This record gives sequence, structure tokens and C-alpha cells, in this order.
Amino acid sequence: MLIVQKYGGTSVGDLERIGHVARKIAAAQDAGNDLVVVVSAMSGETNKLIDYAHHFSPAPSRREMDILLSSGERVTASLLAIALQEMGYPAVAMTGRQAGIRTDDTHMFARIEEINTEAMRNHVNQGRIVVVAGFQGIDQQGNVTTLGRGGSDLSAVAIAGALGADVCEIYSDVDGIYTTDPRIEPHAKKLDRISYDEMLELASLGAKVLQSRSVELAKKMGVTIIARSSFSDAEGTIISEEVAGMEAVLVSGIALDKNQARVSLRDVVDRPGVAAEIFNTLAAEQINVDMIIQNASNDGTTNLGFTVPQSELEQARAVIEGFGEEIGSVDFDEKIAKVSVVGVGMKSHSGVAAAAFSVMAENNINIEMISTSEIKVSMVIDEKFGELAVRVLHETYRLDQ
Amino acid sequence: MLIVQKYGGTSVGDLERIGHVARKIAAAQDAGNDLVVVVSAMSGETNKLIDYAHHFSPAPSRREMDILLSSGERVTASLLAIALQEMGYPAVAMTGRQAGIRTDDTHMFARIEEINTEAMRNHVNQGRIVVVAGFQGIDQQGNVTTLGRGGSDLSAVAIAGALGADVCEIYSDVDGIYTTDPRIEPHAKKLDRISYDEMLELASLGAKVLQSRSVELAKKMGVTIIARSSFSDAEGTIISEEVAGMEAVLVSGIALDKNQARVSLRDVVDRPGVAAEIFNTLAAEQINVDMIIQNASNDGTTNLGFTVPQSELEQARAVIEGFGEEIGSVDFDEKIAKVSVVGVGMKSHSGVAAAAFSVMAENNINIEMISTSEIKVSMVIDEKFGELAVRVLHETYRLDQ
Repeated sequence: MLIVQKYGGTSVGDLERIGHVARKIAAAQDAGNDLVVVVSAMSGETNKLIDYAHHFSPAPSRREMDILLSSGERVTASLLAIALQEMGYPAVAMTGRQAGIRTDDTHMFARIEEINTEAMRNHVNQGRIVVVAGFQGIDQQGNVTTLGRGGSDLSAVAIAGALGADVCEIYSDVDGIYTTDPRIEPHAKKLDRISYDEMLELASLGAKVLQSRSVELAKKMGVTIIARSSFSDAEGTIISEEVAGMEAVLVSGIALDKNQARVSLRDVVDRPGVAAEIFNTLAAEQINVDMIIQNASNDGTTNLGFTVPQSELEQARAVIEGFGEEIGSVDFDEKIAKVSVVGVGMKSHSGVAAAAFSVMAENNINIEMISTSEIKVSMVIDEKFGELAVRVLHETYRLDQ
Repeated sequence: MLIVQKYGGTSVGDLERIGHVARKIAAAQDAGNDLVVVVSAMSGETNKLIDYAHHFSPAPSRREMDILLSSGERVTASLLAIALQEMGYPAVAMTGRQAGIRTDDTHMFARIEEINTEAMRNHVNQGRIVVVAGFQGIDQQGNVTTLGRGGSDLSAVAIAGALGADVCEIYSDVDGIYTTDPRIEPHAKKLDRISYDEMLELASLGAKVLQSRSVELAKKMGVTIIARSSFSDAEGTIISEEVAGMEAVLVSGIALDKNQARVSLRDVVDRPGVAAEIFNTLAAEQINVDMIIQNASNDGTTNLGFTVPQSELEQARAVIEGFGEEIGSVDFDEKIAKVSVVGVGMKSHSGVAAAAFSVMAENNINIEMISTSEIKVSMVIDEKFGELAVRVLHETYRLDQ
């Protein structure tokens, strides 16, 4: 098998951890696999470099930041290759450029445009373990670029896709994706398998493990991901296309998001296009609107509700106030929680949403907003009931079994 | 003027020092100069990375070491560019590769083969201060290479030569080249000017400031160097071709080298080629022979003496013992010092060597070996007289005036 492995910052957090990772890689090669390994910077390094830059400027030039930040992954990649060589395993370190990773020129948030895999393939064909500095590439002009937070996951998935690897193993300090946050519900169970779409809907559960951007790319390129821990030998969670049998599982997980705020507009003048105007203006201000609901009232006005990240609420407030008398009254609420029930089984089974609404009612939790997709039911509720809602929903769908 | 400035590790040793260097650079631009700045890693960083690598291997792969070690200069270059930008000065950081520095593929000791100055010139022509990560380049295959200890000096001199810069300023924590080591002779004086050849002969005086390789390259490319301190506004020492007036100065400096050992061979069989055979064998073992003297004796044998670095004495001993009975007796002495009197004035003035020998005799210092070049007289003496010899020679040639 050709395996792409990615080790995050805590997995290579110090020299002992790097040595441990080298032994894991060696074992995978001993088992007969070809290996390309992508590494992050040692934990703390990237933040240290950002602090250095902020000593000089509150908003340092992104082009220079990319030269600065890309150095951390190069250190880890070369040290890991040296460790493998010393153990008698042929290994070669490659920078993002050497690995053929070409991006657009959006410094600090670059997108991978193309991977020229020739050099990596040559090394693998000669039996070498390729160790790639993650998070980085170069643009068409040869400038160093970085891919943003979680960028090493993206590097790994993109490389796995370009090489046609059998699997992309993402190692962190968490051993997989859970049915819900174990700190909220101690009976949360690790999932053996989850689909890309479910994973995307459960982003708030897996964000520590895997960013949405990487899951989206894996889905697009058909890369099977295994999220697992470098601190244990546990099996981890497979993230892939839906496979036969997945639908037998009604619900995969319950996600809780407490970082949203609700904006409720009442008595909005009911002329055509007013909603479009409001949301276009919010989009133009780069405000991320999540849930939207609209109810026509019977007096020629309409009620409109939506959620935005709490950090963007003040911006949203300014936009709304700009609409003046077209909006009757406005209500902002930061004390909300969004609870989501996610599962591909919903596509073919009815009653999942109804069961959620019932259990909320039984527990006297008022649902303020509802939004659904093919595989998700999200409910906005009072913030203080967030954890309770997660626990009762977890029990309702028997996720602990 | 187009000025290339190079700042060493202590000059950019912490964030405050980097800020100080940014202000020095800004002042040079304010004075109407175009600037290309070459930087070392923050002091301690390169050693830290070497320690990391040695945690995994006593002899880490040089190719991987180059990816590792080149990261330190990239950090300094990007931070310095960010500092300049924040002060309102247009600046751009470049890695060795981006600055067009192409080397051979001798990892960790690469030689610069070519500099494609196009990108640097474009930036300078647009009024930008170019900040280059020193010590590094890439080979023809695109592998990262480094230039060895003192490599950032080489980067700076090579860039100055390739750009046709008016001057290359090398900043360190020492404010120039002195007539001798001020710790030995408190009356040592800073030289205003010295020729490349004198500087090369005085290597042991200037080694902390400037390595021989950089001086050789500067001589070859006709680059005028100014060695000065980033910790003061002192004028520094100009290192250039001999200029009119230089010959008026008989002696420029006195150098002391206590790291040599003497090997004396007595009663060597006097057949043709025996000396050549001995020195060829030493060379084949990579032993650096410095001074050589030979005296024919009158009984068909010859006496041969030479010096080698103390660190290579054991190797030299093995070579010599391999010659068996062709060599009568051998004597090794590590307790020697080499004192050198250097000055271009010697070319046209006689009596310099004689004055040295006289003052040594007056002070009862026995001279064990002598070797001379056009601009240098070197004497091997008992180690314990090293400092005394430096002081009396310094006074003899009135170097304190």
C-alpha cells in the first residue's frame, strides 16, 4: 500500500515525540508499505514566530510572514528524516517546493493549484520514505506561500490525492471522531467510520482533529482519511464516501456550537428583494451567515432570523442599522447554542427530526430556530440548555451503543 | 551608492537587536543609498538546530542538515523586512533561492557558482530594500544547500560582486581589524585600511570578523569590504586592493597562532623525492601542512620540519610512522606558537625581517622555524613566549602610533 501519513504539532511536539513518530513510520514500512509523511511544525513554534512578527508590526506583510512561518515545518521534516536515516531507513526530507506543491499567490491562505509528484514518486520508487514539510508551497513566481491554519492536513490530503495513495492517515492527539464531545457526554463513542458529508456537518466535533477544508478536498479527490492518534495504537475513524451499511446507522453524531449569535428582524417591509439586499450586504462585509429562516406575517411585513459567528455580530449590527426604517425591530442574542443531529441514515429514514423535537419538548427546551439538510437537523436553543440537549439527543438515538 | 550590508548573528541576536539593525538600514536609505542586506540566523539558533539533529544522529545527513540549518536565516530575513515595512520603508525578504544564489551540490560546504541577480535588481530598481537570508542557496537540482560557517559573509561578498555594489559592509560585534589582538597588547590600534593580501595573512586576527574564504572571494571579485560594528558608529576597517600610500606603512599587524604543532624529522634518507613522498601522503590524508623547512646535513641525510594544526597531529604521527626506517628520528611539539609580522610595505622595504629577528634575540626568544612570503615573516617559537613576542614586535614597528 502507498500510505500518506500526516503528523500534527503535538505529535512532533518535542525531540522525543519526533523519535516516537520515526518508530511508527518505520513499523509501517516494515509492514511492507510505501510511505510519504507530511509534518507540521513542532507545537508552539508557529505561535512563537507569529509573536516575533507581532513584536514589529500588528499586521505584518503576508508575503514575509510566509517565509517566516514556513521555516517551522522544514525543521520538523529534516529532523524526522535524520531520525529515520539513523535507524537505517532510507528517508529524504522535502520542502513544499521540492515536493512540487504549487499554490495560488494568496499569501497565508493559499490554495493548492497543482502538485508535480515526479520528485516524490522517484524517491518512493527507490524505496525512500519521503518526509514533506507541510503547510507550504510556492506560487507561480516562486514566492513562498502557506495554506493557513490546519494547512498541513491540506498538504497531506492533496498529496494523497495526487499520488493516488490508498489512504491518508491524519495523526493528532485525539484518537478519532466521536458521536459527540466526550467532555459533555461521557458515554460518547468513537465512530469506526463516517462519511465526508457527515464529517462536514459535524465540523464542530472534528475541528480539533480535521478542518472542513481538508475534508472537502478529500471528498473532491476521493481520498480516504483515517483520523487517529500518534499517542496510542487505537484504530481511529475512517472518513470516506458512504459505503453500504452506513445507512443502517440513523445518526452518527451530535454537534454543539456555542459560538453563534442570533439576529431576529421583525416587521421587515415585505417588498420583493429586501431579504436578498440584506444578505448581499452582509456577504459584501465578509460576514458568515449560517442558518436563515423567514416567516411571512399576515400584515404585509415579514420576520427574518439568521445566525452569525459571535465575533462578527458587531459588524452585522452595523449592516442592519444601515437599513433604517425598512426593518421594524431588531433583536440580537449571543446567548444561544446550535445543536445538530447528523447522519446519512436520515436520507432514507423519516422520523429522525421528529424524535429530536419530541425529546426537546419533553425536557422543556424551547427551539428558537430550525434548519435542516438531507443529513442534518440543526436547532438553535438557549445557550444554557446546550449540554443538556446534547445528552438527551445522544441517548435518544442510542449513540452510546 | 549601492551598498550591500551583512549583519552577523550577534547583530541580530534578539528582537531588540533586529529593531536596532532596521533603524541603521533605514538611516542608510535616508542618506540616499540603495540597499541589499544579508542576514545571519539569530545567534544561538544554528547551534540549537545542530543540537537537535545530534539528538538523533552523531553524523546527520548533510542534505537534510541543509534544509534544517537554512531555516534560521529565513526567520531573521523575514522579521527584518517586516520591521522595515512597519517603519514605512519598502522592504522585501528573499530566501537564498529567491535571491538567485546557485551553488554546487556539496551540502554544508557548498560553493556559490552563479548568482542570477535579476529579481534583486528589479526590487532595488523599484526602491525596495532587499533583505536576503544568508548562508544558503540551491544546487542545480533545486536542493537546498548551505555555505558552511561564516557563509553569510560569503553570500554578502558574492552578492556585492554580482551586483557591482560600491561597497560591502560586514557588521559584527567587533569594530574592525586591529594591529594585533587587543587582549594581548592593550595598545593595539584599529586599522583604517588593509589590503586583501594582508588580511589573508592576518587571518588569525580577523577570523572573528571575517573568514579567509570571504576575503579571497572579495579579492577575486574586486569587492571593497568595510568591517564594522553594529553596536557602535565607529568607522571600521576598509579591506581593499592596495592603494597608493599603503606601502608607506611598513607593517600592518602582528598575528599569533597557538593552534599549530611542530613535527621535526631528523636524518631523513636523502634520496630524490623523499620529501615529496612525505608531503603527498600527508595531503592524501587531508592534513593541512603550514610551514615547511628543510636543511641538508653533511652526512647524506636531511632534516625536515613542518607545522600542522594541533587537531591533525595524531593523524600526521601515523603517516610519519608509516615511513619506518627512512626517517632517523622524529620529534613532535605541541607547545609552539607562530608569530607573524604582516605588511605590504615589506615588498619594497628591506630590514623588516631583520628587525624582527633582532628583537626576538634581545628578548632571549629562540626562533625554531622561519618562513617568509612577500608580505609576511612568520616565526615558530616556544608557546610560552607567544604573547611577549607579539608585544615586543608591536612596539618595534610602532604599531601603537
